[in-house]
Amino acid sequence: MLLMQQRILQDGVVREGNILKVDSFLNHQMDPVLYREMGKEFYRLFGGCGVTKLLTVEASGIGIACVAAQYFGCPAIFAKKSRTKNLDGEVYAAQVESYTHGGSYTIRVSKRFLTPADRVLLLDDFLARGSAMLGLMDLVAQSGAALVGCGIAIEKGFQEGGRLLRERGVRVESLAVIQGMDQGHITFREE
Amino acid sequence: MLLMQQRILQDGVVREGNILKVDSFLNHQMDPVLYREMGKEFYRLFGGCGVTKLLTVEASGIGIACVAAQYFGCPAIFAKKSRTKNLDGEVYAAQVESYTHGGSYTIRVSKRFLTPADRVLLLDDFLARGSAMLGLMDLVAQSGAALVGCGIAIEKGFQEGGRLLRERGVRVESLAVIQGMDQGHITFREE
Repeated sequence: MLLMQQRILQDGVVREGNILKVDSFLNHQMDPVLYREMGKEFYRLFGGCGVTKLLTVEASGIGIACVAAQYFGCPAIFAKKSRTKNLDGEVYAAQVESYTHGGSYTIRVSKRFLTPADRVLLLDDFLARGSAMLGLMDLVAQSGAALVGCGIAIEKGFQEGGRLLRERGVRVESLAVIQGMDQGHITFREE
Repeated sequence: MLLMQQRILQDGVVREGNILKVDSFLNHQMDPVLYREMGKEFYRLFGGCGVTKLLTVEASGIGIACVAAQYFGCPAIFAKKSRTKNLDGEVYAAQVESYTHGGSYTIRVSKRFLTPADRVLLLDDFLARGSAMLGLMDLVAQSGAALVGCGIAIEKGFQEGGRLLRERGVRVESLAVIQGMDQGHITFREE
């Protein structure tokens, strides 16, 4: 999506360790026009796939999923990262490795919200090593729902997540795929 | 908002300890029609107040703020709950007591996203004791921005948060105010 590439070039900041900061428009402050266009684009890509649930993981994916849900007309669900008093009952759970924070954490979704009748589209802000997506795919598999694919705002094409998912036959659509960020210079993989 | 009251009566579940579970439509699975109507209603209530930023705290408020931002046409920001590698630089920080999880946590917003020129509307899914809202108000005060008010999906009117905020002169608009939940029977405070 040209708008996403333009916004990354305009407002993204490259930091040491292949970190791309997009907190002014995507995952801390969130631009309403960009979010709307992301929602429309995910719907253009996956709108014909009979999606019944959008699934993401807290926190940065929640806004993307909720705005996209306005176009899909189906519920959005976010997997929770911590056991809370408000998430009792039966849950699907999966482990996710965290490279940002170190260690791993558990994600959980109530069994009431994913069933074998569902067709699930996964959404998230970033795809890097793919650990969050693999965790969400695990939840979907446990539920017996069908996985439609993954919609990603920004894929780090130089890390292995996208390849890992596509090798498993998962349809991955990323609105911008970063090929490299050498010396702060961002290049995109062309479609 | 009648739709919110109806949805609480239809799908809300009252648990021990004055806990109201609304995870099937508000804060785990999120209903797109309800979210749209919430966004419209917050805009009807606060659209004339010159709001330049919507501010919430992760995680459940993020979707509400992002969908509302579609109507306000201004950015949404979520305060982060943990220090991460991706939130460096100068931040406003405040302490929030957690009654759900016990203890307290720190919320942070980058100083780049709140300035004295901003007019800020706070949004969240629940208002109970008011600790999250007081923390967000602290961040706004530190930034020198103007506080427009608080938009809340569900206020527990039998807890002190709403009174505390209104006594400080804050405009609080709650889409449903629960008066009581005795023996699982939910009653609303009428406007």
